[in-house]
Amino acid sequence: MARSRIAIIGTGLIGTSIGLALAARKDREFELVGADRDRTNVRDAKKLGAIDREVASLEEALEGTGLVILAVPVQGARKILEEAGKYFSAGAIVTDTCSTKADVLRWAAEFLPENVHFVGGHPMAGREKSGPKAASADLFREATWAITPSPRASEQAVSTVLGLVETLGAHPLYIDAAEHDTYAAAVSHLPILLSVALFRMVRDSQGWEDAGLLAGPAFRDLTRLASGDPVMSRDIMATNREAVLHWLGRFQAELETVRTALELGGQPVADLFASTQLDRDNYLTNPPVRRRPEGPEAPSAQDAVGRLFVGGFYDKLKDLTNRTPTTNSRDNQELRRKLGLNDDSGER
Amino acid sequence: MARSRIAIIGTGLIGTSIGLALAARKDREFELVGADRDRTNVRDAKKLGAIDREVASLEEALEGTGLVILAVPVQGARKILEEAGKYFSAGAIVTDTCSTKADVLRWAAEFLPENVHFVGGHPMAGREKSGPKAASADLFREATWAITPSPRASEQAVSTVLGLVETLGAHPLYIDAAEHDTYAAAVSHLPILLSVALFRMVRDSQGWEDAGLLAGPAFRDLTRLASGDPVMSRDIMATNREAVLHWLGRFQAELETVRTALELGGQPVADLFASTQLDRDNYLTNPPVRRRPEGPEAPSAQDAVGRLFVGGFYDKLKDLTNRTPTTNSRDNQELRRKLGLNDDSGER
Repeated sequence: MARSRIAIIGTGLIGTSIGLALAARKDREFELVGADRDRTNVRDAKKLGAIDREVASLEEALEGTGLVILAVPVQGARKILEEAGKYFSAGAIVTDTCSTKADVLRWAAEFLPENVHFVGGHPMAGREKSGPKAASADLFREATWAITPSPRASEQAVSTVLGLVETLGAHPLYIDAAEHDTYAAAVSHLPILLSVALFRMVRDSQGWEDAGLLAGPAFRDLTRLASGDPVMSRDIMATNREAVLHWLGRFQAELETVRTALELGGQPVADLFASTQLDRDNYLTNPPVRRRPEGPEAPSAQDAVGRLFVGGFYDKLKDLTNRTPTTNSRDNQELRRKLGLNDDSGER
Repeated sequence: MARSRIAIIGTGLIGTSIGLALAARKDREFELVGADRDRTNVRDAKKLGAIDREVASLEEALEGTGLVILAVPVQGARKILEEAGKYFSAGAIVTDTCSTKADVLRWAAEFLPENVHFVGGHPMAGREKSGPKAASADLFREATWAITPSPRASEQAVSTVLGLVETLGAHPLYIDAAEHDTYAAAVSHLPILLSVALFRMVRDSQGWEDAGLLAGPAFRDLTRLASGDPVMSRDIMATNREAVLHWLGRFQAELETVRTALELGGQPVADLFASTQLDRDNYLTNPPVRRRPEGPEAPSAQDAVGRLFVGGFYDKLKDLTNRTPTTNSRDNQELRRKLGLNDDSGER
């Protein structure tokens, strides 16, 4: 039998960073394979040591693989789930890193065989540059990683993805897929539009050359997201349009409030800056408390790391590869309740 | 005669960072004194080694001091220039680090004695946190530092401030004060409003707790400026309101364009992200070329450092303290032409 195997589909910034962190584990007993539509990406990932081996086709990447990580833009995930659904091994665990979750969970339910376990994921991490060369094993350290299991994912599958996330140094956050998309639109997707609009405004102005010379870290930070992968951004807007438009409307209203304060001048402007500074500093020093999942199914980080990389997980991967899940759907409902998840999350 | 002296008025993030960089010079032959309305700030700056000595009054800070650095919010600079104008020594060189320049130059012309040389400055640098504890000697490394000499500043004064800026590791950019304010409104002041509006929008929404949990580096970067010193922000808006409102209007129009593209969907959205990524990456890899001042008055960084910190500058400071400038206003016009400055900059 082959060594147990983890496949990373999509070796851009995120996929390669995951690979680098996993490959760095000295005690690993699994093979890391990678695939990417862009052959340069996958070769770069190999050179960087993020994967052990490049595979030429999706079929080769998926067959006999225990854990599959889809690190591609949202529409790419759809294509893979739809066109390669049949190649996933019975019992395989599949996760993703896509920026929106409701559509991905819908496609997983529609296209994956029943005995394949989909647990959605979204690392809240990024960088100015995209592509494997910008990758780093530390990219996810201390980051929030949203986890949205599909209703039929086994306890084992959820645990495994939890272990993966904690191994990468991130903090898992269980969240309903629809809620994820609503809030991600506010804190992650709308900001892309603001970066793009600010950069375009200055770039397309007559004073661009002087303004560009004067621009410092404020302009650089606020326009950073305009350098993100444009395919990723396009797919986000296509799969979360309603929520993004909702928050865009609210932001436009907020700007009108700011304009009014500015036109009035005096105390309202001073108050706006003072109260916002206080609120933001308070947010940074006392961030909202994470809801940790309860019950035996939530391993400590140490347990999860152990399970993922030493015998336990190795056996499990081997085990999973040729078996249908032992957890029936009733146990699953139980697990989901324990994790504080709605029974229908991922179906909305 | 006393050692030649540099006074830093305002020992927050910027003033303390300047002090740290200057104090680190092993070969220095000048004393660094500091003053701040907030006594905690100046004590912290002293503890950090950014100043040699705290002075109790503006009078003490200014009298007999060759180089004065006003590192305070804009309205604070007005207060100092207006109320303490008479304490500046004949021949003293005065610079500032304020975010807007036209008003500051106007106040300098109005309130400073004729034999005091004002050379405005604005380092395009900042940090999430304000105050002396966030300071760093490296804060200005590779930053652009706008320089706006007053029409009656001597060649010596301009050279000295140029030397100071290059000593701090920054790149001087000669710019007309009105132009500075126009472009700073686009790349620095409007971004403050966007950060504030984005933070307020999410913070004041019902889903704040979940959104705050999910928020990652995108939200953090785009709202960073909301943690800036609220007094500084208030003063920026009060002294550059027209330009900020102009760019705010353009930004609102830009957002409407983005909204339309989003509502249409498809290719326009894809094109918007793709072209903006290209343009921004091109800006980062090929930034606009700096216009270096020409002629003998623009010392190389090495010369400037030497002049500022070894005998030359030391003698000059001593020299300046009790003499009126030797450069007459005709020479000054000549210098300004060589530097490519409009003759009336700072008067608008």
